[in-house]
Order: sequence, then C-alpha cells, then structure tokens
Amino acid sequence: MMKVTEVLVTPIAIPDVPLANTKGVHQSVFLRAVIQMRTDTGLVGLSETYGAKRTLAGLRKLAPLLEGLDPYDLRDLRRRIDAALADAGGINAPTALADHKLTDVVFSAYEIACLDLRGKELGRPMYDLLGGAVRKKISFGGYLFFKFAKRDLTFGPDIMGEVMTPDELVRQARAFVDEYGFRSLKLKGGVLEPDLEIETMLKLREAFPHHALRIDPMGAWTVPTALRVIEKLDGVLEYLEDPCRGMDAMAALSARTDMPLATNLVVVEFEQVIEAIGKDAVQIILSDHHYWRGATGAIQLGEMCRAAGLGVAMHSNSHLGISLAAMCHVAAATPNLSYDCDTHYPWSTREIIKGGRPRFTDGAVRVPEGPGLGVELDDVAVAELHDLYQRAMVADRDDTDEMLKYIPNFVRKVPRW
Amino acid sequence: MMKVTEVLVTPIAIPDVPLANTKGVHQSVFLRAVIQMRTDTGLVGLSETYGAKRTLAGLRKLAPLLEGLDPYDLRDLRRRIDAALADAGGINAPTALADHKLTDVVFSAYEIACLDLRGKELGRPMYDLLGGAVRKKISFGGYLFFKFAKRDLTFGPDIMGEVMTPDELVRQARAFVDEYGFRSLKLKGGVLEPDLEIETMLKLREAFPHHALRIDPMGAWTVPTALRVIEKLDGVLEYLEDPCRGMDAMAALSARTDMPLATNLVVVEFEQVIEAIGKDAVQIILSDHHYWRGATGAIQLGEMCRAAGLGVAMHSNSHLGISLAAMCHVAAATPNLSYDCDTHYPWSTREIIKGGRPRFTDGAVRVPEGPGLGVELDDVAVAELHDLYQRAMVADRDDTDEMLKYIPNFVRKVPRW
Repeated sequence: MMKVTEVLVTPIAIPDVPLANTKGVHQSVFLRAVIQMRTDTGLVGLSETYGAKRTLAGLRKLAPLLEGLDPYDLRDLRRRIDAALADAGGINAPTALADHKLTDVVFSAYEIACLDLRGKELGRPMYDLLGGAVRKKISFGGYLFFKFAKRDLTFGPDIMGEVMTPDELVRQARAFVDEYGFRSLKLKGGVLEPDLEIETMLKLREAFPHHALRIDPMGAWTVPTALRVIEKLDGVLEYLEDPCRGMDAMAALSARTDMPLATNLVVVEFEQVIEAIGKDAVQIILSDHHYWRGATGAIQLGEMCRAAGLGVAMHSNSHLGISLAAMCHVAAATPNLSYDCDTHYPWSTREIIKGGRPRFTDGAVRVPEGPGLGVELDDVAVAELHDLYQRAMVADRDDTDEMLKYIPNFVRKVPRW
Repeated sequence: MMKVTEVLVTPIAIPDVPLANTKGVHQSVFLRAVIQMRTDTGLVGLSETYGAKRTLAGLRKLAPLLEGLDPYDLRDLRRRIDAALADAGGINAPTALADHKLTDVVFSAYEIACLDLRGKELGRPMYDLLGGAVRKKISFGGYLFFKFAKRDLTFGPDIMGEVMTPDELVRQARAFVDEYGFRSLKLKGGVLEPDLEIETMLKLREAFPHHALRIDPMGAWTVPTALRVIEKLDGVLEYLEDPCRGMDAMAALSARTDMPLATNLVVVEFEQVIEAIGKDAVQIILSDHHYWRGATGAIQLGEMCRAAGLGVAMHSNSHLGISLAAMCHVAAATPNLSYDCDTHYPWSTREIIKGGRPRFTDGAVRVPEGPGLGVELDDVAVAELHDLYQRAMVADRDDTDEMLKYIPNFVRKVPRW
C-alpha cells in the first residue's frame, strides 16, 4: 500500500493586476501554495491552493503530520487535520464572518494531492475517481473587472490598462472574447455605483446579444437596491450572484424576485446548503474544490443541489494550471453543472505546469487525460515564482489596504449601496 | 482500461421462515439475484440484490447492455440504465406508493459489482474506494419477529417455532443474544395489537436492561396510536422506526414528540431527504446500498444527514453474504453511522460465499479485508439455490398473499391501529 513519505508546501507569488471589487483591489501579486505529496512508491501528487498567511501556516503545520498517510484514506486525512487545527477558525481570521474554515481548505488542498496520487498509481484521469466524466470540454466564462492602470510594474506588466467606465469594460470583454472565445461573461460588480453597473450590463448585452451575462457585486447592495437592479436588468442576466450580504438578506430578496440568485458567499459549507434550502435563499450554488472539501466534496455538493433542485456553477479565485486542471476534473464529473465556470485564469500570464498555459477554444479547456490531474510541475517556473514570493514581501491578501494606494479615503462598506 | 464483457444474473431462492410484519408474512423462500460482472482483464465483480420479478427483469434487461462499460464510469452506467428503463417505475409495481425506483435498484446492484471490480484490480478493500474505513468491526442488532411455526418444511427447516406472545418474543431475543452477542434489539412490530407490542418492549427492557431497543411497525399506527405507544415506552426506545405511514403523518407525529423517529419508508430517495428536512419529519434515516444508488450513494446519504444534523442507521432485507459484505464496507465508510445496523442474516442458514457464514462476535462482523468486497462466490452453493429457485415456483414476493395461508381472513390495512 502506498504511503505518504514527505509533503512539500511551496508558497509562490504570481504577478497580478489591480482588479477592483467592492472590498478593494488586487495586490501586485497573488499568492498560491503548491503542494507536492511524495510516496514510498516514488509518486508525487500535486495540488494548488491559496497561499495567504493562515492557509500557508495550516498547510505547513500539517505537512510533517501526513507522513504515513494512505492517500485512499481521506477520513484519516480529515482526522489528522481536525486534530492539528482544532478551533483554528477561518482562513482569513479566526472569527471572520462568512469565512472558509481552515480545516476545510487544508483538507481540500491535500485531498486533491491524494486523488492525483491515486490516479497516477492507477493510470487513470482524476475524473474516473469521481464517478466518471459527463463532459470532456469544460466551458468557462470571461471574468470582467473594473480595474486601475497598474502603477508598480516591478513584478510584471499590466493587462489592458485602466477600465473604469461601461464603455471601457465592453472593450475589455471584446478583447477577452476575441482571444479566448468565451460565450458567457461575468462582471465583478459592486465597484461603480449601481446605475453605472446597470449601464455596463446593458452595453454588454448590446455588444454581445447572445452571450450569457452575470454580475457579482459581492454583497454590495441592499435588498431595495438589488430589486432596482433586477428591474432594470430583467431578461438580461442569466443569474445574479451575491447581490446582498448574508443568508437572510438573500432570502428576503429571493422572496421578492424570480431572478435566479447564486452565491459563493452565504453558502460555503454543507450545513449552509441545508439552511439555504430551508430559507429558499438561493437557486444556484457555486462549487469550488478549494473549500468544498476537495473534489469529492464538490461532487457531493452537486448531488445535494440536484436533490434540492438547485443549480450548480463554479467559483474561481486567481489561480494557475494545477487548480485549472482540478477544476476541469470536478466540472467533468458534476453532471448538473449547468453554467459556464468562472476563472481568473486570463488575468495572469505565468504557469507552473509543463507545457505552459493550456489553450482555450470557444471559451473551453479540454480536461487533461493524463493520469491523476494530468499535469506535471515545471520546477524551474515554481522556483522563479517562489523567489518572487520571497522578494515581493506580500504574505497576506488585503484588497482593502491595497485600495488605499489608489483611493486614499476608501472605506470598505457592506452593503455599500 | 478494463471493460465489462459479460454480465450474469442468477436468481436464487433461499429457504425462509414465516416472519410476520404488518403487510403479511415471509414466504417459504426469499428471492435474491446474484450478479457476476466479467471483464476483459479476467476479473469478476460480484453483487447481490432483490430477486423478485420486476427487479430481476430490470437486471436482465440491462445485463447485455453493459458490454463495454468501464467500471469506473458510474455515470455511463446510470445513462445506460436510465435509457433502458425509462418510466419503469417502482420495483414492486409501476405505480406503487413509496416504492423504490427500479432504475435506482438496478443501478445500485451493478454499482457494487463495479466497485468490487475496481477493488480487485487495485488489490484494495471496497471501503478504500469510499473514502476509507472509520471502523473495521460492524455492529449489528438482533432483528426480532413475531412468527408462525413453519408448516411447509419442503425447502428448509423452521427457526425457533411459533413466537406470537411477548414472552415468546423475549425468549427469541435471548436465543439471538446468546448466539450472536447482539447489543441492540429491534422488533418488527405492527403485527400484534399495540398494547401487546408495548408489553413486549417493556419485557425486553426488563430482560435486557442495557440493550438498545427499537420497534418498527412499518407504518401500522395512526398518529394518536403512535403517541400513546411513545408515552408508554418513554425512556425505553433508542428510536422509533416508521410508526406512521407517509411523510406528512411522520411530520405530524414528529411535531408532537421528542422521541427520535427513523425511517426507511418515507425517505428512500435524495429528493425525499430534502423534503423530510423541510418538514422535520424524521431524525434518523436508514441507509441501504441496495436502493440508495449503491455504496457511493449510501455514502452521500451519510454526508447529507451529517450536514442536516440527522442520524444514520442501516436497513436490511433478507440477504446473504455478498450483501452482508457490501453492508459492512458501507458501514465502515459512513462516519456518522451511529446505530447498530439491521440485518435479517440470522434468519437464514445458507450461504453463497466461500468459507461459509461469517462469524458474529459481540453482535459484530469484521469488514472483509480482501480486495473489493472481499468475498468469493461458492459456485456449488449458487447452483443449489438457483435450482431451488426453479423448483420453488415463487417468482415474486407477496407477504400478504402468504399470510392468507395462516390467517384466511387477513386484510392488509395501513394504518392498522
């Protein structure tokens, strides 16, 4: 039986661009952790997850404690994590609201490495360990952001300059659609005031009459504001993601509209799925193997949603190719994933897997067919980005603090309008 | 990649004894189907399920259609079954109330064979394919029945003669506890009138002061009757299983009592789990890989129950050792299975696996550690019981019809009291 002998956790920093959201703006780099899980049979399982401070500390605390783990025994993995990180709280702060549990995030990261090992041992793609693929091409949507022009180019170039008006946003969308072939478009809203974001969506509709359109203001709106937006965007949106903050606000809105509401903020644990069903708070839940207890958890989420008549979409954070591969396997094995997946992928230019950046055709990526995740690590690229991590002096994510560099009197406020 | 080349479905009949329930009484034999799924790599995956008419027809219809199936691709298995058995309805009748869907039962049966094949190919026990074992000894409860003395001994002997009074039932329990070491006891109720069954439970409590006790009248009682029973058995029962028939009756009862209510009748599909949560109809759901979409489905049920704060127990029908092995693997891999499992196993004396009948110690069976299910077929024993199937001339289960042999004016009635 294969056993884990060593776990390496390598923090990396990847040049980012100043993408705005209602909390603030992306820093000069985004942080990821690359996991290499070695076994006594000579295999290496890969995984990629958040690289900010508390996640990294949790991953590092567990790494030596995973020696001897059987990659098939996910329940033993869970026990080891729960024992080591009891009462660790959320990944952003021990007591932050609506945070992801550190135990869930650490489990999720190592679970993917275990599945990669199992697939490699078997010579089968990861989706086969998840019940089989219902699709082999995974469709992603273009993720549109209002953004500043990047000021500090020390760690990498800007992408597409300042975008702070509806017309500029439409130009950004056009560039993305031309380059990647996306067939749906999502705007990270909650940045400009609602009337300007309504105008943006209407201009997107005009420019892309057949694209599915979404907007995600990350809880920036009150229920009355959300209702006003819905009225103006009736027939324009495929769904509305996290217009209001908190389960009860979403439920109050849901009771007053037919617009499908989606979330990756108020439902991030299985217990909250049950609560959301009881309150009819949302109609679509965003899956994400980075916190829904790995790929197996994401599949379970799909089954729960199917049983409850809820839709499933897929959430993204800034990520590289190991995460992209895992997202593809999960999407392949989630029959009721009926929306194009989110991805921040076009907003970076680097890669840490051999063969470089995967190709998007008509907005879609082919699920890697190699064993496990189907990707191999480019050690040189990882070393470069680990070096950048050490030089960048950014150990945590803080979009609000970063925003002060652009808007000195910025105040984070939820809801904002 | 291994592919299925041939599927054999062998109906068998096993001598049974006249165990009573509110619907009627067990026939002279019970029916099972034994599945052998062969691959181009020379492996044989095993499974055991119901052998009555409609299930057998469904299994047989699918058998030739599974050629070329990849045992990892459970979603392809599902597609083939759904295509072949569209609108097939329930396993007992196309439109029976609260029946199991034929598609779910056929999927469940073949899913176990697929997992057995995967475990055999890997050289790992089935529980490793279900996330790992949290326990290796599976505790079962003694399943007690009122029963008639068996009249027709053509196909096999009786076990423990007539048991139709509280005192006789306690003697039956004593014999089971002495022989198997059971630490919990469940009475199949709904047979005698409620006062006699209350008396039975009180006498069991007196005789077994430390055993967990349950009663399952299979929906025989009205809500007021159930409330009266609960009042008399306050502090005596671990839980009360299916006192009333139908989700709404269970919900009405649940609203009026603190007694934990369990079910294997009103919640048999994932959609019904959601409904039951919404109505707070039950506190414990019985798992059963024979209809909860196989072992992977049973594990998903466990996760849903955990998220909803519901307990999980395990249901049984009359079965032999392949089913027992699968039940053990599912129980091993269901962390929140917090009650002793049901089993009819002591009510038969035959076996179809090599090595004969597994040993119960302190009411528990060790999970087989061999690859896959960890059991091998005894071809001679299967042939004998297939021969009995052909001789017995019983092709369907009908407890009500059988009851007329003992009580000519018997009328099936739900609720009865």
